[in-house]
Amino acid sequence: MNKNPNESKSVLAQVMLPSHANPSGNVHGGEIMKMMDACGSVAATRHAKKNVVTVRVDELVFYTPISVGHLVTCTSKPIFVGRSSIEVKVEVKVEDFMIGEEKVALKAIFTYVALDDHGKPSAIPGLVLTDESEKKDYELGLARYRDRKKNQ
Amino acid sequence: MNKNPNESKSVLAQVMLPSHANPSGNVHGGEIMKMMDACGSVAATRHAKKNVVTVRVDELVFYTPISVGHLVTCTSKPIFVGRSSIEVKVEVKVEDFMIGEEKVALKAIFTYVALDDHGKPSAIPGLVLTDESEKKDYELGLARYRDRKKNQ
Amino acid sequence: MNKNPNESKSVLAQVMLPSHANPSGNVHGGEIMKMMDACGSVAATRHAKKNVVTVRVDELVFYTPISVGHLVTCTSKPIFVGRSSIEVKVEVKVEDFMIGEEKVALKAIFTYVALDDHGKPSAIPGLVLTDESEKKDYELGLARYRDRKKNQ
Amino acid sequence: MNKNPNESKSVLAQVMLPSHANPSGNVHGGEIMKMMDACGSVAATRHAKKNVVTVRVDELVFYTPISVGHLVTCTSKPIFVGRSSIEVKVEVKVEDFMIGEEKVALKAIFTYVALDDHGKPSAIPGLVLTDESEKKDYELGLARYRDRKKNQ
Amino acid sequence: MNKNPNESKSVLAQVMLPSHANPSGNVHGGEIMKMMDACGSVAATRHAKKNVVTVRVDELVFYTPISVGHLVTCTSKPIFVGRSSIEVKVEVKVEDFMIGEEKVALKAIFTYVALDDHGKPSAIPGLVLTDESEKKDYELGLARYRDRKKNQ
Amino acid sequence: MNKNPNESKSVLAQVMLPSHANPSGNVHGGEIMKMMDACGSVAATRHAKKNVVTVRVDELVFYTPISVGHLVTCTSKPIFVGRSSIEVKVEVKVEDFMIGEEKVALKAIFTYVALDDHGKPSAIPGLVLTDESEKKDYELGLARYRDRKKNQ
Repeated sequence: MNKNPNESKSVLAQVMLPSHANPSGNVHGGEIMKMMDACGSVAATRHAKKNVVTVRVDELVFYTPISVGHLVTCTSKPIFVGRSSIEVKVEVKVEDFMIGEEKVALKAIFTYVALDDHGKPSAIPGLVLTDESEKKDYELGLARYRDRKKNQ
Repeated sequence: MNKNPNESKSVLAQVMLPSHANPSGNVHGGEIMKMMDACGSVAATRHAKKNVVTVRVDELVFYTPISVGHLVTCTSKPIFVGRSSIEVKVEVKVEDFMIGEEKVALKAIFTYVALDDHGKPSAIPGLVLTDESEKKDYELGLARYRDRKKNQ
Repeated sequence: MNKNPNESKSVLAQVMLPSHANPSGNVHGGEIMKMMDACGSVAATRHAKKNVVTVRVDELVFYTPISVGHLVTCTSKPIFVGRSSIEVKVEVKVEDFMIGEEKVALKAIFTYVALDDHGKPSAIPGLVLTDESEKKDYELGLARYRDRKKNQ
Repeated sequence: MNKNPNESKSVLAQVMLPSHANPSGNVHGGEIMKMMDACGSVAATRHAKKNVVTVRVDELVFYTPISVGHLVTCTSKPIFVGRSSIEVKVEVKVEDFMIGEEKVALKAIFTYVALDDHGKPSAIPGLVLTDESEKKDYELGLARYRDRKKNQ
Repeated sequence: MNKNPNESKSVLAQVMLPSHANPSGNVHGGEIMKMMDACGSVAATRHAKKNVVTVRVDELVFYTPISVGHLVTCTSKPIFVGRSSIEVKVEVKVEDFMIGEEKVALKAIFTYVALDDHGKPSAIPGLVLTDESEKKDYELGLARYRDRKKNQ
Repeated sequence: MNKNPNESKSVLAQVMLPSHANPSGNVHGGEIMKMMDACGSVAATRHAKKNVVTVRVDELVFYTPISVGHLVTCTSKPIFVGRSSIEVKVEVKVEDFMIGEEKVALKAIFTYVALDDHGKPSAIPGLVLTDESEKKDYELGLARYRDRKKNQ
């Protein structure tokens, strides 16, 4: 049964601690990538209702550095599905909650593959697109998917 | 300028990892208390627009154990304010997102004190209560506040 | 066979590291709560000789902030037992060991329930009280226990 | 003074611990991305002799899952430089060192920007390419660079 | 003013968590060495009332493996002092507190040097030995100290 | 079948993060000891092709402090084998990779015992020494081995 992307939308959020910092004192980019991967896999699992593994990350862009003490909120939503693969758009916002300003800090596209109980790729539901923005994301996902199939 | 509790409502959310487990394999209660304290302090800071410190925790109740792999979502909202102190209600829900069931896992009341730049308690805005549930929470908070003042 | 509270008295102690700090540079209250829960559960397990789970925390009070580099020593001791539940008093002292001053930093009451091998609440030994201070703690524990039973 | 890519080649290596695992028991992809970012930034810093920040990640591909107990070795090498930006190829190999098999586990391209003391993008040395493989990597990097400039 | 070794005796104690385990599931020896170093440095600091740095470790012996869930208690006590260096004996006991058995798990001798405010080695108080066991430890420490001076 | 020490040579390397620091802001000696133990056990496992446990550490010397942000590279190589025990020489170098200077930071000798599937000490291959430096290391290892056998 196909599903709406919003049914699988997921949110993770954490206050950044000194233990998340890199030597320069800002938050380690790798810590945020770890949070993005976790957030993307929640959305992919919600869509597939199966275990998923991360297979690739594309177009991960850092827009603004993140400081210790800031609130980081990560959202994820499926944008394209193949037979067993799911592309998830992941966006990270950062907020200095003493002041209240929120900015986009990172964006990326994570691809997961759903696995059956034997660890083999397993078919998943399709996506029911509901607006223009979702259709545009789907088209771009499909183009990336075809590119990769072609290069295999 | 007084504020509505919902203006300061805050959400933190994490997927529980093996590194959060206690020796029995469930998530360490202390890990969740740490998350609750962080979530409560976001709400208290949003209300006070000042640094806050945790001064007490009351009625922290564990309703259901939390497993590695589950999504833990913590919400917090101011319920009572004194001159410089803020009581925040903190609630933790847990979801096995493969299945989709969400349950209340813990609840507690955290009290913070707002500090000025010299680390002294500092006056904060009042609360504008907007419904019966907020008024009831405020009354209970006021009762706890008076009890503590009496016992000092 | 009933037991003396002192037979189950437990001590945990750690030097606070930068990885325990919150964004303001002091030790994260949540880190200490995690240590208190671990310390309380050692005392509860020693009394029950069974697995225990944390079910509630009451009157957790922060008296003094804790700095990175300080020695934190946590002690715990059963004060009241129901049929399967155990109330443990947990106290945290902090010491700047370069100077030698020790102060009480936090106190709380943690309640645990002992479980049998099927995860069901399981009867535990009673307490043999040995002095006036233990008797007073027991009376207060009994009052809290009756209050909670009444409100269930 | 321009530099050979091999002068900046960098290696990080770690044995994967249970604290690096995700809920399914394999190593958390995010942990490895964190290691890749750190490894790439060593190579970028060695080339630029300035502080660098991560600005994007492209074509991050997971080839094989990584288990707790395996040795993960990450290598990085600059492949393309703009005025202040550096593209670094990062490759992760995994080895079950009890047996001795080594496999490629992940590959990606990380882009860093060198910063001067005021945090502004700062010019960096060019690359002296020494063989056909380096020339091919450079061409692909240049194509990606032009694509991004065009889309800005 | 010279001091008794017992004035500087120090205790650290922790319950071992899954995040302390190595790939085989036992507690990582390195985690325990980290705890021993911290415990030894508390004793050395208490004796010197100055900052100390670890300069060497001798005869670190592992007697018994440590499991997740066990209580690890580390004690330390100065046994020999040079002009600015302090030898500290560190002993680790492990207890399965469900059962109550305590065993010696590791022993070692850590050497620290006291530093003044400019980071230079700085003279420290002598030791007032109070019994035969302390005298024997001191003699062995003096022998090691002379050996090392000879080999420098 | 006997083996050359270089066949089992192993390398671990990490950039030091703020979460590795001790209260004084330098890297915690214990973190480095943990890395040395892991590195030594890779070399011992490669030689034995069996599980190994750490049994002792000797002559662990700290030559220079390590700062957050530095690259730490640990190398290990078997130097002596008994019937089931392996002595491994472990050396740690530290590099400020912005500048490029590399210094020896720590050295130690770790001893491991190989275990069979029942956890019993198990015979391992001998060492084929290939140069004068390896022969000298072996002689010193043999002397330490005989000393310990004598004192048992």
